[in-house]
Formats: sequence, structure tokens, C-alpha cells
Amino acid sequence: MYYLGVDLGGTNIAAGLVGQDLRILRKGSVPTKAEDPHAIVADMATLCRRLADEEGIPLQEIAYVGIASPGIADREAGEMIYANNIPFRHFPLAGLLADALGVRRVFLENDANAAALGEAKAGAARGAKNSVMITLGTGVGGGIIIGGKVYMGSNCAAGELGHIVIEKDGVPCTCGRRGCWEAYSSATALIRMTKEKMQADADSLLHQLAKKEGKVSGRTAFEAARAGDAAAQEVVDTYISYLACGIGNLVNIFQPETVVIGGGISNERENLLRPLRPAVVAESYGGGVVRSPELRIAELGNDAGIVGAACLGL
Amino acid sequence: MYYLGVDLGGTNIAAGLVGQDLRILRKGSVPTKAEDPHAIVADMATLCRRLADEEGIPLQEIAYVGIASPGIADREAGEMIYANNIPFRHFPLAGLLADALGVRRVFLENDANAAALGEAKAGAARGAKNSVMITLGTGVGGGIIIGGKVYMGSNCAAGELGHIVIEKDGVPCTCGRRGCWEAYSSATALIRMTKEKMQADADSLLHQLAKKEGKVSGRTAFEAARAGDAAAQEVVDTYISYLACGIGNLVNIFQPETVVIGGGISNERENLLRPLRPAVVAESYGGGVVRSPELRIAELGNDAGIVGAACLGL
Repeated sequence: MYYLGVDLGGTNIAAGLVGQDLRILRKGSVPTKAEDPHAIVADMATLCRRLADEEGIPLQEIAYVGIASPGIADREAGEMIYANNIPFRHFPLAGLLADALGVRRVFLENDANAAALGEAKAGAARGAKNSVMITLGTGVGGGIIIGGKVYMGSNCAAGELGHIVIEKDGVPCTCGRRGCWEAYSSATALIRMTKEKMQADADSLLHQLAKKEGKVSGRTAFEAARAGDAAAQEVVDTYISYLACGIGNLVNIFQPETVVIGGGISNERENLLRPLRPAVVAESYGGGVVRSPELRIAELGNDAGIVGAACLGL
Repeated sequence: MYYLGVDLGGTNIAAGLVGQDLRILRKGSVPTKAEDPHAIVADMATLCRRLADEEGIPLQEIAYVGIASPGIADREAGEMIYANNIPFRHFPLAGLLADALGVRRVFLENDANAAALGEAKAGAARGAKNSVMITLGTGVGGGIIIGGKVYMGSNCAAGELGHIVIEKDGVPCTCGRRGCWEAYSSATALIRMTKEKMQADADSLLHQLAKKEGKVSGRTAFEAARAGDAAAQEVVDTYISYLACGIGNLVNIFQPETVVIGGGISNERENLLRPLRPAVVAESYGGGVVRSPELRIAELGNDAGIVGAACLGL
């Protein structure tokens, strides 16, 4: 038995043919025609057929197709209620792809939720019943897995974990609120903090590293701190303290077995986890009395959407 | 078929005999011997027998007994892992009560979780699949209902919704963190805000009301605001804005059908809900695009623990 996982992004449609062990046997991608939902369906179908063909697997041997899409996905209706970058407005994406491919079962899920499911089934939270995934990238994405399934809430819009206010009336967030966790723990926020520190400290190593790299990135502060720069260490410490605050909130709410951390900043791996672990325990309710969740770096990287989509019918 | 619900409090053990319609047919209470867990078991058994006797129901017709207890309850093991005010340390409360009563099925749950379940099955969140209950009292209590069941997390300690930081490095909380929601939205917090305003404004009506009542309570600011006092209105507005911030966080995380508000402050009913509703929508992600949860005042009052306990085996 095989599964097809499709990860719809703003730039590319990626898809993978996945085996029963949840490994990707073959993958491919095509550009996203983001302005035309029907073209997206046609391109998804072509890509899926091609992967199955190339692997020599008849479509009848595909148990189901899963789609991970940005936006609000109604998985019961199989429709995209809304997306930001693609004109989905109650668009029956699952049914249209099922028709185009001639398959019976197509499942649909929000991409951050699908990634969390992928990590829970075949990645860093493997074996956990309850896990939470956060993605530290341009924003802070979130996915909640309860009892091995995506928790989507009553209107399919749950899990906006980046939009928990941790500093009332704080930094404006793209969502319209002020002080959201995303405004302090995204890569974007780390870059902002790094630039602010550079303005305040003309002698910091941060300036040399930024010049060498051609820009300030989410890595700049971590690298300069490793080289012993005190100003950069302050940036990293501040960033970690905000990250621990938000993860502590999630622990007090969910007490999951595992918190999975993905996105660009997670490439720091142990440099991130080492200071983060004790800080999260200190921020957790009953820290000493109950077992604290494991903090783990995501394992599936860019494939999390494909693998998660391929897990939607499990 | 009947159920027995037992609500263990620091001061009293309350219990109720509950019918299949989830109404309490008869209830009673005895003082809690808080220093002696075994005496608590014996007193629970005596109280349960008495209620069944008085109602003329043989214990064999009781489907099960449910216990709501403060602290961390492991419902699978039937033991109280820990409590603050009662010396429970991995105490097998469910099994001991089953033995003492000679019944087979005794269920155990944390009291805030049980109250949330009671409201979900027989109160303000009746019919909702996913709901969240918050209790605005001495602290801010929380309970999470997902798919009609209590969500307890992987270590039985989930749902500490009062201990979500909403103001990093803010007011110290009893839990050891700073800036927890509880430190801004509990009755205790409202009283603190009211007293602070009284110190700043010697002419406010707050002084007269506090003198009349003999103390500052969670009602003082609401009452003075209703009488047109501007200083009191500022306190109420501030309190509502913190409350909306925390509820907005819960909406963005859970997107439940219903948020149930209980505890002393909820006695303000529409005076609380009227300003709260638009404030919560403004604090919610995708406010206009997706349906916002209903905000409702808890219906079961002091019986929520009994009724919730009686629902534990449903």
C-alpha cells in the first residue's frame, strides 16, 4: 500500500510517493500557479500521476492522497475555506483532485498541522500521543496533535500558536494584535532584535558577521555569540527567554510528551536546546512534580508537509 | 441508572446522587479532614451511602462513582499524584473508595477539569464538542474539553490556563512565574487593581462602596462603575482588556465552540459579557473570517464539581 502526499506552497507544489513505513520513495515539484486554484488542481494531478508512473505504481495501489495547504482547511468538507496567498474561498480542493486523479479518498489539512502530524507519525515526536510543533521561521507556526490526530478546533482554525499574546500591548504583530509570541520568537523577530543591538553597539562582532554574510539573518546573533561577542550573547539570551516563555505557556496548557521545534532557527539545534531546556522547566507549572515534555528539533525538514499529508488518512 | 458525584474541597466534601438526565436528585456534604487522606475516603463512603439510602437507591443501581479533587489526578491509575492542601502523594483514592463502598467503578479527575466536563455535558457548553472553561476566582482555573472528553495531557497536569504568561516579566504569580493571566484576571487581581485605583483617587465612589461593604471585593469596581464612577470604570475597562487578551489567546489556540466563564466574577453576567464579546473578537485570529466561539456564563455554579464528577464515566 502507498500514499501520495502533496504539499502546496506559495511558490511550489511538492509531492511525494510514500511507502507504508512513511518514507518518501520518490518526490517532485512544480511551480504553483498561485492565482488560479483550478490550475493548481490540474498541476497536482499531473505531478501525482508522474510520481506514481515513475515509480511503476498503479494509482489503484495508492490508498489515498493527502494535501497540506496554507490557510484554513475544512477537512470534513474537503474544502479550503480561506487562504492568504491563494484565492481559496470555500474551494472544494479535495473533491476536485479526487475527480482529476480518479481516486476515491483525498484528505486535506492546513500545512502547519500536517507538518506537526508528520513529525508525530514519522519524525521527532514519533510515539507521542500528544505533541505540539512550533515552526520558527518568518512567523511562528503551530500544530497540535492530540491522541495521535490533528486538533483543528470547531471551525478548522485552531492551533495559531504564534498568536498567543505574551506581552500585552507589546510589539505590533502582523495579525493585528500587539505582543504576540510570533513578534518575539520568529526568525523575523530575532533579526529585528539583532539589528537593534547593532544600532546600540557599534563595536559588536555582529557588524563584521553581517557584512560578511551581506545581511543580518537568524544565524548572525548565534554565530557572534559563539565567537564570544557579549552583545550578541545578550540578543541570544533575550531571544531564548521569549522562546521559553511561549513554550512554557504551551506546556502549562497541553503538557504534551514532546514539543517539536522546526523552522530556520531550529538549525541551531543543541545551541538552541541547551539553554532552552532549563528555561522551559523554570517556566512550567509544577516543574519539579510532573514530568516535563521533551524538547526536540524537527527531523523531517522540508519534507514534513509531504509526509504529514501522506499520514492524513492513517 | 444513577451516578454518584463527589466533589472534594479543602473545606467540605460535597456529593450528589445524579440521575440519567444529569440532574442532582439529592446532595449533601461533610467537613473535609484535610490532614488525613484515609479519613477522607471513609467520609466519602459514608456520605455516598447516606445519599443512596435517603433516596432509596441500592448501591448496585449506581453505575459508577466519580470524584473531583483538587490537585493532579491520574485518572488511568485512579490515583491523586499531588495536591496542594491535602497530603496526596500518589494516593490511590479511586481504588480505596471502590473498596470502601463495595462498588466496581470509581473515576477520578481534577476538580477544574470535572467542572468543565459538567458544564460541557449538562451546563453552559451543552452540545459543544470542544469547549474551554475558565473560573475567575481566587485564581484563574481552567479545563479543556476536546471531543466531549477532558483533555488531561500526557502527565495529567494539562489545562493550567491561568498560568499562561500574558505580560512577560509582569506581576509575580503564586506559581513562581511573572505576568501570568491569573495575576490580571482573577478576582484577587481585580481587587488589587481596585485598591490601587482607590489609592490614586481619593474622591472615587469606590471608597464609599468599600466602606459600606466592609471590604474591597470583586464586585466593588463593577458596582461603582454602574453608578457612573469614572475611576471605577477605568478599573473595569482594564480588567476586561486583560480578560479579553487571555480569552483571545485561548480562542487562537483552541477555537472551541464555547468558552464558559465561571467563578465569583462571572456573577456580573451580562455586565461582564457585553464589553467582553467584541473585545475577544478583536483579539482573535481571523476574527471576521471564521466563526468566533460563544462566550457563556457557567450554569451549574457550586454544583459543577458534583455534576462533572457524575459525568466522568459517560
